[in-house]
Amino acid sequence: MTRGDLLERTIAAIPAPDLDVAAETARLLDAKTKPPGSLGRLEDLACRIAAIRGSVPREALRPAIVVAAADHGVAVRGVSAYPQEVTAQMLATFAGGGAAIAVLAREAGARLVAVDAGVIGGASVHGVRSEIVDGARGTEDLTLGPAMRRSTAVGLIERGIALVGELTDDGIGIVGLGEMGIANTTSASALAAALLPAEPSSVCGPGTGIDDEGLVRKVESVSRGLVMLSLGPDPDPIEVLAAVGGFEIAFLVGVTLGAAARRVPVMLDGFITSAAALVAARLCPSVSGSSIAATRSPEPGHAIVLDALELEPLLDLRLRLGEGTGAALAFPLVRAAVSILTDMATFDAAGVSGPSEAPEPADV
Amino acid sequence: MTRGDLLERTIAAIPAPDLDVAAETARLLDAKTKPPGSLGRLEDLACRIAAIRGSVPREALRPAIVVAAADHGVAVRGVSAYPQEVTAQMLATFAGGGAAIAVLAREAGARLVAVDAGVIGGASVHGVRSEIVDGARGTEDLTLGPAMRRSTAVGLIERGIALVGELTDDGIGIVGLGEMGIANTTSASALAAALLPAEPSSVCGPGTGIDDEGLVRKVESVSRGLVMLSLGPDPDPIEVLAAVGGFEIAFLVGVTLGAAARRVPVMLDGFITSAAALVAARLCPSVSGSSIAATRSPEPGHAIVLDALELEPLLDLRLRLGEGTGAALAFPLVRAAVSILTDMATFDAAGVSGPSEAPEPADV
Repeated sequence: MTRGDLLERTIAAIPAPDLDVAAETARLLDAKTKPPGSLGRLEDLACRIAAIRGSVPREALRPAIVVAAADHGVAVRGVSAYPQEVTAQMLATFAGGGAAIAVLAREAGARLVAVDAGVIGGASVHGVRSEIVDGARGTEDLTLGPAMRRSTAVGLIERGIALVGELTDDGIGIVGLGEMGIANTTSASALAAALLPAEPSSVCGPGTGIDDEGLVRKVESVSRGLVMLSLGPDPDPIEVLAAVGGFEIAFLVGVTLGAAARRVPVMLDGFITSAAALVAARLCPSVSGSSIAATRSPEPGHAIVLDALELEPLLDLRLRLGEGTGAALAFPLVRAAVSILTDMATFDAAGVSGPSEAPEPADV
Repeated sequence: MTRGDLLERTIAAIPAPDLDVAAETARLLDAKTKPPGSLGRLEDLACRIAAIRGSVPREALRPAIVVAAADHGVAVRGVSAYPQEVTAQMLATFAGGGAAIAVLAREAGARLVAVDAGVIGGASVHGVRSEIVDGARGTEDLTLGPAMRRSTAVGLIERGIALVGELTDDGIGIVGLGEMGIANTTSASALAAALLPAEPSSVCGPGTGIDDEGLVRKVESVSRGLVMLSLGPDPDPIEVLAAVGGFEIAFLVGVTLGAAARRVPVMLDGFITSAAALVAARLCPSVSGSSIAATRSPEPGHAIVLDALELEPLLDLRLRLGEGTGAALAFPLVRAAVSILTDMATFDAAGVSGPSEAPEPADV
């Protein structure tokens, strides 16, 4: 198979969410022993999951989190508060179990798949899945030219698609996205600025804690990246991804597309995973219907990207760590939404009266 | 022991949250492998729990939900979309396992304690704990006079305190509040209007789904209840509770006070449980420091009461069911907050570099 074929076939296979199934789910929920709609967004979530799957879930969805890590050439521009070596160090802690996402995935009962998508010095670590494409470790500096070759971007997307295939074959029913990569909010900001489009200053923020001068360097770096890219109207998403994206982001674009094609809901995390979903949605608009937004990050670009994807996050906990931590924290809500469908009694079965036809007030 | 003694002793025993322990917890979190504060409100929650307990938790807190049910005389005023018999029917489904709270408590790994605090026709149901005081089932119509006698209110509060004692002796580490009672948003609205104080029209809403005419009757009923009460400035909270409260609300006031005295966090649910917490906070202001707000209900009075208690809810899922469903949905966040304290690696232990002293940008 030629590189690019799997991507093309996957995009062609992505269905729109099934609105009939969503309506059927809403009817099932209205028969449960509670006032209609009184479980609010939990009911909306149940309907959305059913529509993505194309069927009403009959049991809990088995969750996994794919946390992809890679390094970014733009880190030399001083756009992160942390040194680049932290990417490799954190990837090791994902596998070692001490990282936030390792802890929170365990709590959520989710399988954690840690992926090396191009970490510098990321020699084989037990428990980390290597998905290096074309031997590339660390992107080029996006302010000087394309971050990666187009064919490398396509190769990484296809690795992400293939991983989802394995996970769903193994019974995984929902996939959370996570990422790690020093300087990757700069890359995500550049993707958002190019694809929305938006002003670099409107989508750049402090990331995991850069100071004001660092933020100025970040906006400058994004602006330079866009100049190098010299966009026309309606830019090619793969070209934009190759120019200013990251290896882990490309991999997550693939996970998002692959999950949509398999009718498996994708739980987005923070700003960077949402930028990956934006690239995927520009390749195939139905994709955003397969996504669920876990959290609203304080990063200013996140709200703008979520609006573009027409997604309202389930949580607003001011998380700015990434790694998939927000996705892991939202999984219990998914479990709860499915459980009200599968486990709650109906009014009829429980012998509970419905609303009065017309309330009969006593004389006051 | 005379009725009233336990209440008095409990209020005297309630400590303020321990701010030193909160600061110690924040230091422990800053040593973990993540940028300081990057887990946002999850970190705040961990600190708050530690401050309430007076010690940093070393393991997951065992959760319970206390869902108290009772009937309300004001239901005859046509203030609810549902007939009064639903209270007894729903209490049976709590014990039977088919109610939303039964399902969501199971999902959260929480023990569910269903309490009959004065349900009309609530004859003994297996799995329901009877906490009837003075043989009272169903309050009097609060528009015509006091809903209950003062001594009954005190008796119910003390039953709630006693239940928390049993639960904590049994190893429960966090208690969620839940309630059921046709017309009880009217009672909660009257409590809020009297204690905040606030205009009846500003705290009354559609509850579980009353129409506009029902809402008018609700505002009128609350206004009449307040007239009957003829409040001075700085009213006695027990007098207000007896005049316009409900049996289940009185019981939950006791649970809230008892938990605070035992240094056990209380997870509030929607508007009605928050009205109970407001009564408790008027009896002892430190109580609001022992509470955690799970959700923001669409009921307009809820935001006002939460502001008065200085609580920001963890979730905003547009729930308007009650029963403790919001508390159950917030428990996984508590579990997650404690797990980052107990299970995450520190920078030192994981060999991960901290922030760069000063980022060194390359020449651009």
